[in-house]
Amino acid sequence: MAAETSVSHVNGIDLEVLKATIGAIQQDPALGACRFRARNRWLGATRNCSTIAGFHGAGQEIPHRQAFELHADEPAVLAGEDRAANPVEHLLNALAGCITTSMVAHAAVRGIQIDELESELEGDIDLRGFLGLDPAVPKGYTNIRVKFRVKTAPENLALLKELAAFSPVYNTLVQGAKVDIDIEAC
Amino acid sequence: MAAETSVSHVNGIDLEVLKATIGAIQQDPALGACRFRARNRWLGATRNCSTIAGFHGAGQEIPHRQAFELHADEPAVLAGEDRAANPVEHLLNALAGCITTSMVAHAAVRGIQIDELESELEGDIDLRGFLGLDPAVPKGYTNIRVKFRVKTAPENLALLKELAAFSPVYNTLVQGAKVDIDIEAC
Repeated sequence: MAAETSVSHVNGIDLEVLKATIGAIQQDPALGACRFRARNRWLGATRNCSTIAGFHGAGQEIPHRQAFELHADEPAVLAGEDRAANPVEHLLNALAGCITTSMVAHAAVRGIQIDELESELEGDIDLRGFLGLDPAVPKGYTNIRVKFRVKTAPENLALLKELAAFSPVYNTLVQGAKVDIDIEAC
Repeated sequence: MAAETSVSHVNGIDLEVLKATIGAIQQDPALGACRFRARNRWLGATRNCSTIAGFHGAGQEIPHRQAFELHADEPAVLAGEDRAANPVEHLLNALAGCITTSMVAHAAVRGIQIDELESELEGDIDLRGFLGLDPAVPKGYTNIRVKFRVKTAPENLALLKELAAFSPVYNTLVQGAKVDIDIEAC
């Protein structure tokens, strides 16, 4: 994919817009505080659907242009009908997309042109943890490997790897996050 | 959603299938080792698409019934066209779906009937981290709040909260994971 490059666009990213957001947050750091949201509904058995309708950012509620629906199921071996990616595969998608956008946007701000970018991800989960067969086995991913192939000037590769570390999903996975779960009757 | 309940199905989950998988892994613990995978391709600017085609589990390569495509974009304030959920929203979807399926499946094995289940998630990210404006600000989610509403017998609520903790995505976020990033030219 040959990306658009002009005075105001690098890698297809509109630098005017991005720099306006950066400038606004520099002036008023409170504008950086975002709250992202999802609603999810169980559809029976191993199927469920999330709706992503909007978020809080830049000091205001921002609705998406349309509500996005994301479906999950499980493969047959996990008693599902395999109608959609399963949640741990959705997690890999989140990671892939976030590192990709982080590299592309941070490269754009630095004037580094990327012509093509693709990745392969693979993560290890031992089902003995999830199934409760061995409490010593971790229930989540232990290792995730991300391999990027980039078409860019060779001297950019090392910097791109540094820019990958700006990714919010990457940082969430590596640093961990506090997750509070509340359950009530309806 | 009134879930199917019979001798072999609870919450719509086929217990014969699930118990066969559990039994196989109990007999040969090596069968628990899964490798989940995604491929992702940058589509220009803030857009990219993951393809989820199959995984390694139960000692074999298991293709999905079809390859699933998952799209990501960014909202206008982050220089995107808002054509899809963004990666940090995809992460919330992964978490919602995983906790939901974990509760439903583990409840089914224990004979606990769930009639309806839905959730709302909200997570905090301060964009000053991602944008590199303040190195002291975390780049990822710091806190994620998950609120479930469940239609079930009231005495099940406390146990369901315990079962939520089997979720692989929940555990990945709370415990963290090792993520290796490799970048090469193409």
